[in-house]
Amino acid sequence: MAKNKTTELSTEPNGDLDRRSFLRKSLAAGGAVTAASAGATQALAEVNPANLPPKKPIWSQMLGPGVTQSPYGSPSPHEAHVVRRNVGWLTSSTQSSINFSPLQDLHGIITPNGLHFERHHGGVPSINPNEHRLIIHGMVKYPLMFTMEEMMRFPSESHIHFIECPANGGMEWKGAQMESVQFTHGMVSCCEWTGVKVSTLLDEVGVDPKGTWVLAEGADGGAMDRSIPMEKMMDDAMICWAQNGERLRPEQGYPIRLLVPGFEGNMNIKWIRRLKIGTAPWMTREETSKYTDLMDDGTARQFTFVQETNSCITYPSAGQQMSHKGFHEITGLAWSGRGKIKQVDVSVDGGRNWRTAKLQEPVMSKCLTRFRIPWHWNGEKAQLQSRAIDETGYVQPTLAQLRKVRGVNSIYHKNSIYTWEIDTNGGIKNVQLG
Amino acid sequence: MAKNKTTELSTEPNGDLDRRSFLRKSLAAGGAVTAASAGATQALAEVNPANLPPKKPIWSQMLGPGVTQSPYGSPSPHEAHVVRRNVGWLTSSTQSSINFSPLQDLHGIITPNGLHFERHHGGVPSINPNEHRLIIHGMVKYPLMFTMEEMMRFPSESHIHFIECPANGGMEWKGAQMESVQFTHGMVSCCEWTGVKVSTLLDEVGVDPKGTWVLAEGADGGAMDRSIPMEKMMDDAMICWAQNGERLRPEQGYPIRLLVPGFEGNMNIKWIRRLKIGTAPWMTREETSKYTDLMDDGTARQFTFVQETNSCITYPSAGQQMSHKGFHEITGLAWSGRGKIKQVDVSVDGGRNWRTAKLQEPVMSKCLTRFRIPWHWNGEKAQLQSRAIDETGYVQPTLAQLRKVRGVNSIYHKNSIYTWEIDTNGGIKNVQLG
Repeated sequence: MAKNKTTELSTEPNGDLDRRSFLRKSLAAGGAVTAASAGATQALAEVNPANLPPKKPIWSQMLGPGVTQSPYGSPSPHEAHVVRRNVGWLTSSTQSSINFSPLQDLHGIITPNGLHFERHHGGVPSINPNEHRLIIHGMVKYPLMFTMEEMMRFPSESHIHFIECPANGGMEWKGAQMESVQFTHGMVSCCEWTGVKVSTLLDEVGVDPKGTWVLAEGADGGAMDRSIPMEKMMDDAMICWAQNGERLRPEQGYPIRLLVPGFEGNMNIKWIRRLKIGTAPWMTREETSKYTDLMDDGTARQFTFVQETNSCITYPSAGQQMSHKGFHEITGLAWSGRGKIKQVDVSVDGGRNWRTAKLQEPVMSKCLTRFRIPWHWNGEKAQLQSRAIDETGYVQPTLAQLRKVRGVNSIYHKNSIYTWEIDTNGGIKNVQLG
Repeated sequence: MAKNKTTELSTEPNGDLDRRSFLRKSLAAGGAVTAASAGATQALAEVNPANLPPKKPIWSQMLGPGVTQSPYGSPSPHEAHVVRRNVGWLTSSTQSSINFSPLQDLHGIITPNGLHFERHHGGVPSINPNEHRLIIHGMVKYPLMFTMEEMMRFPSESHIHFIECPANGGMEWKGAQMESVQFTHGMVSCCEWTGVKVSTLLDEVGVDPKGTWVLAEGADGGAMDRSIPMEKMMDDAMICWAQNGERLRPEQGYPIRLLVPGFEGNMNIKWIRRLKIGTAPWMTREETSKYTDLMDDGTARQFTFVQETNSCITYPSAGQQMSHKGFHEITGLAWSGRGKIKQVDVSVDGGRNWRTAKLQEPVMSKCLTRFRIPWHWNGEKAQLQSRAIDETGYVQPTLAQLRKVRGVNSIYHKNSIYTWEIDTNGGIKNVQLG
C-alpha cells in the first residue's frame, strides 16, 4: 500500500489543522494505519487472519485465568511511571511539599484521585473523622459546631470543578523553563466534588447582614487560613466530603475541605475546621506575605482570587519525543475561574496562524475542558501554542502582554500562552516566546 | 432552642418530600442543626468561640506537620471499609470472580477507579501493552493489526458512561433478598472513558457493505467473545485506553477495552484483541448458554443488548441504620441504556404516593444520574422506592409487571423497582413488594 507523503497532505507551511481531513485523506491513500505511522512495528503483510486460530492467538499474551480479589484496585505495573512528582527545591523542606499532576499522561478531563496535584503549607494531618468538627461563629445569631455526621445530613450537591494553585507556572515569570507540562501546568486538577453548599450552613447560623467576609481555617499543622468574601460563600462555595465518588483523599482535606470554584487553590481550605464571619479580611500570612504579587511600582496585588483563563497543550508537549512524521492529534486542557471555556485556538507556527480546536462536551463552568485538533507534522520545526477564550470574552494573553501589565516580579497568576518547540529530530522543548 | 417536632413538618403520612421546606422550616425553628439531628454528640452550649484561641483549637486534631511524598495516592485508613466486595458463592471458583461497587458509600456519579465493579469470565490477564495487538479482519478490504502506539495516534474522544452487568439484581428473580444495595445494584459503575471510535477504525479497514455483525474477542484466559451489530459499532462504540483520566485498570481491560455504551456489561469486551466482521452472529457461549433468559414458554430471550432503565436509592438503603428521626436527604442513582434519564420519582409508602426528585446536572446519555429529594422521617414504618423514566418514555417496572412478561426463570435484566423497608427502630431491609 502506498505511503502517504506528508507534503501531499499539507495546506499550510507545517501541515494541516483540519479534523475532517484525517479520514478522508487516509482513506484516499488506501488504509492509513501504515500511512499515519512511520514508526509502525508491524507491517500489514504479517497479518494473515486465516492462519490465526480464534482461540489460540499469537498476537497477544494468552495467560492463565488470573485471579482478582482486589477490594481496592490500583493501576497496572506497566503504568508505574504515571505519578505525581515532587520537586524538592520549590519549598524549603520536604515537610512543606508539592506534587504535580502528570498532565502529559492524562486523558479526558477527570483527574483520578491518586494523581490529583498536592500543595500543603503544613503537611497532611491525619484526622479521625469522628473527632473532627466544623465550627461557624463570629457575626452570627447561632454559633454552631458540626460533627461529620451532622454535616453530611444536609442537602448535598456534586459539581465537576478544577482546582488550580495560583503558583502554576510561577517559576517562569523570570525566565525559568520547566522541562515538561507536568511542571509548567501540573498544579491544576479536576474532580467531581460532593458536599453541602456553604450558603446552606450559613443560613442555619443566621449571619449578621453586616458580615461581609469569612475566615476559613484548616486543621493542618499550619492552620492554613484565608479571608473569603461573603458573596462567594453565598454563591457556589461548598464544604466537600467526596471527590470522584469516594471520600476525600487525606491530601485533599479528609474529612472535609472548602471548595470555592474558580478561586485560587490555597483558598479551597483543606481539613477545614472553622468559618468565622466578620466585616473585613483578616490579613493572614497567606494573603499578605504570600499569594500577593509585587508590581513594578513597588505596590502589591492582593486578593487576586480568580484563576484567570488558561490552557496548555498536553500532547505533543515539552519533554516528549515525536515518534513519526504525519498525523498527530494535538490535545490539551483549558479552564477559566470565571465560567465556561468558549473557544480554544491552536497554532503550530508560534502564534502567526491559528485554528479553532474542537471542545469536548460537556463544557462546564469552572471545569477543565479538553480540546483536540488534528495535525500533520511535516518533520520541520514547529512551535505549538494554545490560546483559550472564556465565556466572558477574556482572551489568554501572551507572556509579553502579561509582563507589560504585571512586570517580572510576580510569582502567581501566570496564565500566559506557552510554546512547545518541536525540532527536526522530533525533540520538544519549552521555549518562551515574546 | 426548640426541637422540631416531625409531626409539625409532615404533610403526608410519613413526612415531607419537598426540597424547599428544609431550610424554611428549620430556620423557623431557630437553628436546625440540633433540630435536624436527634443524635447530635455536641450540644451548642459547649461552643464558646471566645475561649478558643484561633491557633490552638480544641475541637479538631492538631497534629505535627505531616509529610506527603505519595507519588500515587490512596484513601484514608478511616475509609478502609469502603471496598468492592466479592461474593464467592456466585461463581464456581475464585478464578471466575465478581466484585461489587459499594454504592451505599459513593457520592455523585463518578465511580473512582479503585471501586469500579469487576466481572471476569477467565480472570484478569497481565498484559504488556508493548506486546498487545488489536486485529480487525473478516469482511474488510484491508485487514489491519494495530499496536497500542498506532491505536493511540487516532483522533480520540472522552465520554462519561455507565457500564452495568445484566446480572445486576439477578439473584432476586426467584426471591432472594440481598442485604445491601452493594449486592442488589453494585454491578453498575460510571467513568469518563477515553479512546477512539470503532467507526474510525472500521473506516480504515474498509468494511464490506454486507458486513452486519462484528465479533469482539478479549485476550483473557477464556477469550471472552460476543457478537455485536455493525450498527452499534458505527454509532457510539469505542476502543478505550483510559478511564477517569488514567490508563485502564487491569481489571477493566488494560491496555484496551471495547465500550458499547448502554449495552450489557459483558459486551464491553476487556483486553480486546480482535474484531472480525461477518454477516451473522457467531453464537458464542456467552450469547447462547449465558446471557440469555429462559421464558415461561420454554423459549429463550437472546441478544438482549440494551440495559433497561433502572434506579436505586443508595441512602437510606438496606443494611444501613437510621440515626435519627427528622430530616434526611434521600439520594440514589438512575440510568438507562437508551439515553438520558428524564425523571425519577420517589415514594416513602411503598409506591402509593410519588414525588419527583431533583436530578443532578449535567444529565448525560447512558450515564449514571444522581437524584436527591429531602424527607422528614417521623419514626414510623416506611417503604422507600425509586422509579426512573428515560427520555424515550420507558418507565421502570414493578417486579410484578416484570414477572408478568418475563416469568421467574430469568437471570438477567432485572430492572424492577426495589423497596427498602424502614422499621420503627430505624433498621432497613430489602423487601420485595408486588
